[in-house]
Amino acid sequence: MIITDNLLSSLLETRAHTEEICSPLQIEDYVVQPIVDVSPPKWHLGHTTWFFEEFILTRYNPSYKRFHEDFAFVFNSYYESIGKRVVRTNRGNLSRPTVNEVYEYRDYVTNHLQVLLESREDEELRSLVEIGIHHEKQHQELLLTDIKFILGNNPLLPKYSSTFDENPNNNSSDRYHLVPEGVYEIGYKGEDFCYDNELGVHKVFLEEYKIAHNLVTNKEYLDFINDKGYEDSLLWHAEAWDWLNTEKIKTPLYWHKINGEYHQYTLQGLQQLDLNAPVTHLSYYEAFAYAQWKGERLPTEFEWEVANKSFDWGLRWEWTESAYLPYPNYAKAPGALGEYNGKFMVNQKVLRGGSIATPKNHTRPTYRNFFHPQLRWQFNGLRLVKSK
Amino acid sequence: MIITDNLLSSLLETRAHTEEICSPLQIEDYVVQPIVDVSPPKWHLGHTTWFFEEFILTRYNPSYKRFHEDFAFVFNSYYESIGKRVVRTNRGNLSRPTVNEVYEYRDYVTNHLQVLLESREDEELRSLVEIGIHHEKQHQELLLTDIKFILGNNPLLPKYSSTFDENPNNNSSDRYHLVPEGVYEIGYKGEDFCYDNELGVHKVFLEEYKIAHNLVTNKEYLDFINDKGYEDSLLWHAEAWDWLNTEKIKTPLYWHKINGEYHQYTLQGLQQLDLNAPVTHLSYYEAFAYAQWKGERLPTEFEWEVANKSFDWGLRWEWTESAYLPYPNYAKAPGALGEYNGKFMVNQKVLRGGSIATPKNHTRPTYRNFFHPQLRWQFNGLRLVKSK
Amino acid sequence: MIITDNLLSSLLETRAHTEEICSPLQIEDYVVQPIVDVSPPKWHLGHTTWFFEEFILTRYNPSYKRFHEDFAFVFNSYYESIGKRVVRTNRGNLSRPTVNEVYEYRDYVTNHLQVLLESREDEELRSLVEIGIHHEKQHQELLLTDIKFILGNNPLLPKYSSTFDENPNNNSSDRYHLVPEGVYEIGYKGEDFCYDNELGVHKVFLEEYKIAHNLVTNKEYLDFINDKGYEDSLLWHAEAWDWLNTEKIKTPLYWHKINGEYHQYTLQGLQQLDLNAPVTHLSYYEAFAYAQWKGERLPTEFEWEVANKSFDWGLRWEWTESAYLPYPNYAKAPGALGEYNGKFMVNQKVLRGGSIATPKNHTRPTYRNFFHPQLRWQFNGLRLVKSK
Amino acid sequence: MIITDNLLSSLLETRAHTEEICSPLQIEDYVVQPIVDVSPPKWHLGHTTWFFEEFILTRYNPSYKRFHEDFAFVFNSYYESIGKRVVRTNRGNLSRPTVNEVYEYRDYVTNHLQVLLESREDEELRSLVEIGIHHEKQHQELLLTDIKFILGNNPLLPKYSSTFDENPNNNSSDRYHLVPEGVYEIGYKGEDFCYDNELGVHKVFLEEYKIAHNLVTNKEYLDFINDKGYEDSLLWHAEAWDWLNTEKIKTPLYWHKINGEYHQYTLQGLQQLDLNAPVTHLSYYEAFAYAQWKGERLPTEFEWEVANKSFDWGLRWEWTESAYLPYPNYAKAPGALGEYNGKFMVNQKVLRGGSIATPKNHTRPTYRNFFHPQLRWQFNGLRLVKSK
Repeated sequence: MIITDNLLSSLLETRAHTEEICSPLQIEDYVVQPIVDVSPPKWHLGHTTWFFEEFILTRYNPSYKRFHEDFAFVFNSYYESIGKRVVRTNRGNLSRPTVNEVYEYRDYVTNHLQVLLESREDEELRSLVEIGIHHEKQHQELLLTDIKFILGNNPLLPKYSSTFDENPNNNSSDRYHLVPEGVYEIGYKGEDFCYDNELGVHKVFLEEYKIAHNLVTNKEYLDFINDKGYEDSLLWHAEAWDWLNTEKIKTPLYWHKINGEYHQYTLQGLQQLDLNAPVTHLSYYEAFAYAQWKGERLPTEFEWEVANKSFDWGLRWEWTESAYLPYPNYAKAPGALGEYNGKFMVNQKVLRGGSIATPKNHTRPTYRNFFHPQLRWQFNGLRLVKSK
Repeated sequence: MIITDNLLSSLLETRAHTEEICSPLQIEDYVVQPIVDVSPPKWHLGHTTWFFEEFILTRYNPSYKRFHEDFAFVFNSYYESIGKRVVRTNRGNLSRPTVNEVYEYRDYVTNHLQVLLESREDEELRSLVEIGIHHEKQHQELLLTDIKFILGNNPLLPKYSSTFDENPNNNSSDRYHLVPEGVYEIGYKGEDFCYDNELGVHKVFLEEYKIAHNLVTNKEYLDFINDKGYEDSLLWHAEAWDWLNTEKIKTPLYWHKINGEYHQYTLQGLQQLDLNAPVTHLSYYEAFAYAQWKGERLPTEFEWEVANKSFDWGLRWEWTESAYLPYPNYAKAPGALGEYNGKFMVNQKVLRGGSIATPKNHTRPTYRNFFHPQLRWQFNGLRLVKSK
Repeated sequence: MIITDNLLSSLLETRAHTEEICSPLQIEDYVVQPIVDVSPPKWHLGHTTWFFEEFILTRYNPSYKRFHEDFAFVFNSYYESIGKRVVRTNRGNLSRPTVNEVYEYRDYVTNHLQVLLESREDEELRSLVEIGIHHEKQHQELLLTDIKFILGNNPLLPKYSSTFDENPNNNSSDRYHLVPEGVYEIGYKGEDFCYDNELGVHKVFLEEYKIAHNLVTNKEYLDFINDKGYEDSLLWHAEAWDWLNTEKIKTPLYWHKINGEYHQYTLQGLQQLDLNAPVTHLSYYEAFAYAQWKGERLPTEFEWEVANKSFDWGLRWEWTESAYLPYPNYAKAPGALGEYNGKFMVNQKVLRGGSIATPKNHTRPTYRNFFHPQLRWQFNGLRLVKSK
Repeated sequence: MIITDNLLSSLLETRAHTEEICSPLQIEDYVVQPIVDVSPPKWHLGHTTWFFEEFILTRYNPSYKRFHEDFAFVFNSYYESIGKRVVRTNRGNLSRPTVNEVYEYRDYVTNHLQVLLESREDEELRSLVEIGIHHEKQHQELLLTDIKFILGNNPLLPKYSSTFDENPNNNSSDRYHLVPEGVYEIGYKGEDFCYDNELGVHKVFLEEYKIAHNLVTNKEYLDFINDKGYEDSLLWHAEAWDWLNTEKIKTPLYWHKINGEYHQYTLQGLQQLDLNAPVTHLSYYEAFAYAQWKGERLPTEFEWEVANKSFDWGLRWEWTESAYLPYPNYAKAPGALGEYNGKFMVNQKVLRGGSIATPKNHTRPTYRNFFHPQLRWQFNGLRLVKSK
């Protein structure tokens, strides 16, 4: 019973924390979707709830009555095998259900989950609840970065919070850690939760490399800008160069030059650029170009994983040079949950680490985050590697 | 002073009526923009207010302090000569200012207008306030049709009102009125307000024609559908045929076939199709194809204007065959207000009449409404004409 | 028999003239389609041939065997009722049939037409051949303007001809002709060929106006450019302003500023701008903006038709203010030929006159040419009108 | 001198072979670009020539006079650091230079190269000529596949050759070769030419795997189609599923179902599907989905390279699971030639092997071909791998 208790309290804490993230919002902030990648906060609230309803309540509680018949249509994200859904680009066109109704939906599902968990001991159920909790934690981070995008692209630049510090500590050093060549083990080996994409523990051979102790800072990145790094095509991938010119990219996201001084929109509002803070809101393309300019390179995800004990991490998701691919012996879960990770393993890059927006204890040294190379709205940064 | 009193009360009534239209809305409904033509209700509330602030308060009250410096950027619609503005496609991406702030903005501007009007007698001012009132009335109709679109395209199909009847009276007849050939006068000749596009009273020569007493009904339009009118390319303009196939159009907007029966989303929610009601939410392309199929045609705007005493009108805006062009001797107003009408006089068709969504006393026999030929979200319908 | 002789010789002359227009081309020039509006010359050669095959030979000659079964698919332009066809944007993707095969196809069809016309007297046949001849003459003009576009947008700027003079006479005057108010007759009343869109002779009432004797010249248009006419939004339609900024339009088509001097690509190659020549390769939007800037306006097509005896015309197609709409009592021909004109009567503007690219005797005072308002690759120009 | 002789004869043979590939073409076939990925044959002829002119003749021959000043603009492919160029989508809009002029350009440059090579001994020059030869060989394969696309998408389906057999030998077996786990060396170690992307010899650790002796055949792929593999979303990547539905993909490229029987367009024209031939013209997405359906997987490029001695290869480029990434210690060449490979190392998949369109001796076991995952116009196929 202790196990269920822990699971239940973990569930309730997670559900409550999601709502806490939204507490500074105005009703209007819950509704909009300024770009396709950014979902309306109320969609996140509903979708994480639907996940529990769809994969647990309707399967384990035979008398369960859905809160609303149409919500599966509204809140399914990408599960093709579950049925039709609102296309992703239309999430911001839906004023209903209202925010209040979504909160009622949350309460309804949380209460039913609580009753179910108190009445039933079942390993498979326990495992699904665990996935649901981790799924919701992933959305907590997206929620925060989506809120930042919604507010940070509004002409009024409203602040989200007076206390959320994006740059809590700014230790700077130019140390590198040497990792000798050898065969290393990669992948999750513990007993706790991990995603299927971390499994398939396997060996990789690594050549000797040196990896930076610290993330690249705003100050260092500013040198790249001032050296006209954004104007030198030889530093960029061909697709990056097209993207740069089409989108007229000249700095990381959220930078504003005001009277000749760079500022950055943060969750605390517009602030002068903190030169010692790790640079963030970069695309992979920018991270790569910076490393080229510096004459160094990004680590592979394997180099990062092997070296992770040597440096602090967790301030920024760190772009790696690795493409997001299945590990040897990777096996998708059967059924709809098999759509969770595997079907995204093409055209994306792996990020490692975690960020100041990542929920406590959510990430791990083996955790594989992934995004398309041009995306910038997460708290992404970079760490350099030198080959011998 | 009586005149000012009337103007002031007209202003206050108009401002109040706009807000009354929004009274059934949830906060969330104010925010979304599901297609580019449909603006968020809070944008209409703000834009009609900005119009008074920009064209009157900042010009006639030297000590006037804008409610918020950035609102001109947020709420300018299309006045190039006034400065930069949020691009039209982004109106639905803005969660701020909040609905409450927009209502405060409305009160602030209305109060300042009231003080200004009570303190000053001025023909030019009076004329600008009159334009502002009529401008806001135009937006009242857009507000209602935009709300219908927002709710009517939501998968939950919420109703707007229990009492707003879209089809108040359904007289049907197959009478036609004959109008003899001759030279007729066109354009506004009265003393009251009219738009610049109605001016330039001028003569046109009309051949004899017969114009229907009634609008085409849902029942009649259904015959066209059942006769496969949407599948016969010879009935359609070339651009209409491409549009039809790209957009997969098979019925007017808001029709739903449920268990073999046609229903229509109305402001009172989903209802069975009222066969005797005038058909509505048609594009010009559909109105034209229907007339072709019937072997008749749409009236020109001149035929409509000359014949308007003979039939009831005001239930639906009626597509005419006329393109929206300047009348002879048409002159744009100088400055930014010259952008009100003239710059839209290309690629649009004229609609005449008015609809159940048109504010009381807002339309006239000489009133020229205009839309692109493919647009359907207004309460548009059609009336047939036979040449001899 | 004389009539058939004339018809036959007219047919043969027309067929030969089309090929003469192509005589300066290299094989490669026949194939490309740099923008959707510009068809490959070999497509024009094939399409005008298919028109005779489809509408005449397969109908009047029971033993006729098509030259190639797939050519109907390749060379149908827009006749929905005739069957499937290569989509318009793909015409430039087809290397086959080869140019030689297309010329063989032409000979084959011309020979069969000759045999048919010599063997048969038939009013309906005669009328169809006449349409086919006029159809081919229309394509002769398109052929020339498409060739100009193909060569004029090639970085090598090859010349088409050493003798084709785009600016044969440059009389300049600032005279205007006054036309008194009155009821005038519009439309074609003769016995010879005309298109269905010119029929429906009808009366229009015109107010008094003054119409320029000459077309606007390059010199005059240059004043508009130098006065920053392309930068003043108040001179432009809203859609024009968007077009201008998206396409980065700053001059008419084919103008090149070289070492500070304007040049113009002509069929004789790149030349210094002829200041006294009538300005050409303008969109309607530019013609309208110029007239606005000048404080005058474009004529309606009716004003043009009534006044046409007073001025020289035929150097440039002249944009009018009139939208392309059916005349009263306009009736489409039955069947596929009904698709010839009627289905384009929306979203286009009428041009009157004719140009140096128009085949001899092809145009008339009642001839209605029509294009979308942004198109510039025809020899379009403008003539001003003053209201009293 | 022998070395130079060999290099020179290799150069002359390569130049001649490129033209031989084009010998069955009509002039018109040289000009078109039906999709952006397919370049006009005359562009390939010119571009491979420009490569020698730009990187060798203008640098090693001080008195060299370019054949035509504008050809660098016309025939530069993607070298940003060399200057402006015709945008890739416009290659098919250029009728000039003519095919004859391009052949004259080829002769001019080949002759100058011959004189240069006969007059000068220089290691760097020799190395650049070698790159130019290999560059041209790469374009020979593209030329052939582009020609196939141009003819195979023409409604007349002309054949390219009576003798080019796409399926020369069809051995079939279901054998798999076992490769034991271990650390293996990857990358080119020889003395002959290779590309920079094959260098950086390095070790990888591989787990045990079994790799198929034969490529997947049309017959086997047909089982996948008949089992509704194209309709089961769980087999596909998310981006693949969107692509499939947007493009309406139901078979590999060039398949035609005629009277219920599958046919395939080949360089010998339309033929019945050869069931024993290796399936080809697949995207990576389809190769992956097939392997999923089969319960197996694609090899990584390392698995392929290690196992390549055990199976025949060279009929089809084989999609691997590997993303195209730099090897450890990969270093781009300095200057414009550094743009050759490195800037494409994102968003593409590696293919290994070679195809019946690959020039003799052009490929190697270490050769890394790469394409975007949705592209199908190369002779791509797949080979399966089983993990233990």
